[in-house]
Amino acid sequence: MSEATLLQRRHRVMGDASPLFYDEPLELVKGEGVWLIDANGQRYLDCYNNVPCVGHCHPKVVAAMAEQAATLNIHTRYLNERVVRYAENLTATFADPLDAVMFTCTGSEANELALRMARYFSGNRGVIVSDYNYHGNTTSLAAVTTALPSSEPFSMHARAVPIPCLYQADGSPKQVAERYVAKVAEAIASLQAEGVGLAAMLIDTLFANEGIPRLPAGYLERVAKLVRDAGGLLIVDEVQSGFARTGEHMWGHQAHPVTPDFVTLGKPMGNGFPLAGVIANRERVEAFGRSNLYFNTFGGSPVAAAVGQAVLDVIAEQDLQGNALRQGAKLDAALHRLAERHSIIGDVRGKGLFFAVELVRDRSSREPAGTEARRIVNQLRQRGVLISKIGAHDNILKIRPPLVFEAEHGELFIDRLDQALSEL
Amino acid sequence: MSEATLLQRRHRVMGDASPLFYDEPLELVKGEGVWLIDANGQRYLDCYNNVPCVGHCHPKVVAAMAEQAATLNIHTRYLNERVVRYAENLTATFADPLDAVMFTCTGSEANELALRMARYFSGNRGVIVSDYNYHGNTTSLAAVTTALPSSEPFSMHARAVPIPCLYQADGSPKQVAERYVAKVAEAIASLQAEGVGLAAMLIDTLFANEGIPRLPAGYLERVAKLVRDAGGLLIVDEVQSGFARTGEHMWGHQAHPVTPDFVTLGKPMGNGFPLAGVIANRERVEAFGRSNLYFNTFGGSPVAAAVGQAVLDVIAEQDLQGNALRQGAKLDAALHRLAERHSIIGDVRGKGLFFAVELVRDRSSREPAGTEARRIVNQLRQRGVLISKIGAHDNILKIRPPLVFEAEHGELFIDRLDQALSEL
Repeated sequence: MSEATLLQRRHRVMGDASPLFYDEPLELVKGEGVWLIDANGQRYLDCYNNVPCVGHCHPKVVAAMAEQAATLNIHTRYLNERVVRYAENLTATFADPLDAVMFTCTGSEANELALRMARYFSGNRGVIVSDYNYHGNTTSLAAVTTALPSSEPFSMHARAVPIPCLYQADGSPKQVAERYVAKVAEAIASLQAEGVGLAAMLIDTLFANEGIPRLPAGYLERVAKLVRDAGGLLIVDEVQSGFARTGEHMWGHQAHPVTPDFVTLGKPMGNGFPLAGVIANRERVEAFGRSNLYFNTFGGSPVAAAVGQAVLDVIAEQDLQGNALRQGAKLDAALHRLAERHSIIGDVRGKGLFFAVELVRDRSSREPAGTEARRIVNQLRQRGVLISKIGAHDNILKIRPPLVFEAEHGELFIDRLDQALSEL
Repeated sequence: MSEATLLQRRHRVMGDASPLFYDEPLELVKGEGVWLIDANGQRYLDCYNNVPCVGHCHPKVVAAMAEQAATLNIHTRYLNERVVRYAENLTATFADPLDAVMFTCTGSEANELALRMARYFSGNRGVIVSDYNYHGNTTSLAAVTTALPSSEPFSMHARAVPIPCLYQADGSPKQVAERYVAKVAEAIASLQAEGVGLAAMLIDTLFANEGIPRLPAGYLERVAKLVRDAGGLLIVDEVQSGFARTGEHMWGHQAHPVTPDFVTLGKPMGNGFPLAGVIANRERVEAFGRSNLYFNTFGGSPVAAAVGQAVLDVIAEQDLQGNALRQGAKLDAALHRLAERHSIIGDVRGKGLFFAVELVRDRSSREPAGTEARRIVNQLRQRGVLISKIGAHDNILKIRPPLVFEAEHGELFIDRLDQALSEL
């Protein structure tokens, strides 16, 4: 079956607008560690996917899934020791007072639930998000999404604020912080004037979709304080920054002196098994539960728990957080060396094994090189390396490999990126 | 580890309001076919769970999951033949013009998406649901839910209509139909008067939560016509009635001369793997996709597709639709025989392997026997049989076993139910 025909078959049953990566979509048949293999046997170094955070088809995760699926796979309204144990081990990775979990299947469901809880506890309806955000595909998340096209009108109860990046913003870090904190204050005032108040600010503290901006010191703490002072709650989305990705910490927000009210988890949590959740204080979980009968049929099933536990175990046993830190440092240095030879690289930003490489046509004007970024992504695919791009101008290369990424993979990636940049 | 301690541990990390079945929650460790086994080795005949529709831990489904998880488990923005093939086989079970699928992970996500699409195509915002419905746990579904407590206020853009049941409603079938169709017309008029119009009616045509009412002839067709005439779309939720459950058809709605605009699928689709979706006409899927970049990270992954295909294969190979019809007929006869001896049984209603047994204190007044239903459910658990209860008065026994239910299981169930009823 040729790829063209498979694409036609896909269009026939899934529609031609169902999104696919690359100008020529990639037909994959096998995954293994940091490698993906296409229908022609071509191997690709995966420098993009965070879902398989401990590596594609990790044998320990596969075995846990298979064993539990053959033993018991039932919904969550019976007791099961494996589920409770996983909940204990997962919540133990968070600082007080975040000591309880509500399991869901997807990040969308987790953010939905966190927003429901924030509205419940604050008594308010308003939400603040970033002006280039994506937190999920449900109605109320689509109504606050700014990074993807949606027919859902932007909610009258939401405000989108720009996130400061010291690479782009003019002025001293202190001035930048001042200016962008003021925008949050304005958003809160506007929601209050509208009569809905502030229920929550929903952010990814790494701001991955926005391009991993260099935040000015103090920005997040000051924003968190404004949110709390207005009676709102802070929801931190760890779908991209969590599970040891940043190397420094298990959770992205732990790099900052802020304590979220709710943390939402998703993609990497089950290494591809649909597993997600909301982390919160137990008293809040219980109080919410007394006014809401919330259950999630598959969320936190024994199989989900077995898989989630295997992911935590592999992260610990293979020291993937340490690996993210070490390999991340090497990649960071190598990307900065590339920037010395390729003036199109305006900035290299990142943490652990997550990089944003901003391409610009001119370093002083910082004119976004969006077309070039698209060419690099497609060129790298031709050279056997998978990455993607992000940011409002689509000019930021997104590099986010599985955490089992080794030095040799980093060298291969840098070599191929160097070639692609040279041939622009 | 004793059950009491496990319950305490669960409360500590998941809160004490996270719902569990039974006055004394059941700690399960193993599932097999129609059997569930608790931590003490006690076996329970599962007459409740529809998620494991082809039986707990079906070896073919487990093998498909394990094999694909060891081969490739990636999100949905690459081409994969297995995913396309499953989409083809799944959509082939629907009548024209339902020829395309959008995969999600949960029924909640499927109903969310169907509602988003209905609003998009109708240009309206209003929704009609039944007055005892549950279609999911997201904000906009919680805002139309009437069967569960929720802190989300009932949407001003929704109307809840009662569903006719010939067992309860007075008058001839024709009069009943007339009266209840009029309520839908009133709901539509009210939404139009409010200025939001009708986007969709969202129903399960079996009305499982409502207690599988005996619908008067013509009711559904007339309601569907009213919905279309008002510019609204018909969303049929097959989470409970689908996948051969009713014996007569693969999908519950196929028992009626109505064609839905969207069909939403969930629970049984992956036999416990989080897999769900929306079935629609391809032109609608494509038109929606041109204004909305909808993607679902895990929905329709290669593992999801492998599992979903295995479920379809087992249904066909083991003729589970035929089995539902045959075993359902036997159970129906046996339940009617029980009703001759136990006057608390007011009515026996059902289709295939899905029964609602309505308990009443008095057959002429039909006073709901809610306390008694609760005692029966707990008594049956003590006798090694799992069922549940439904309906607005919690007085309807819900019997919905995995579809691999055989004659001997039916006999055991009837015997235990007989005992429990005798001891009331």
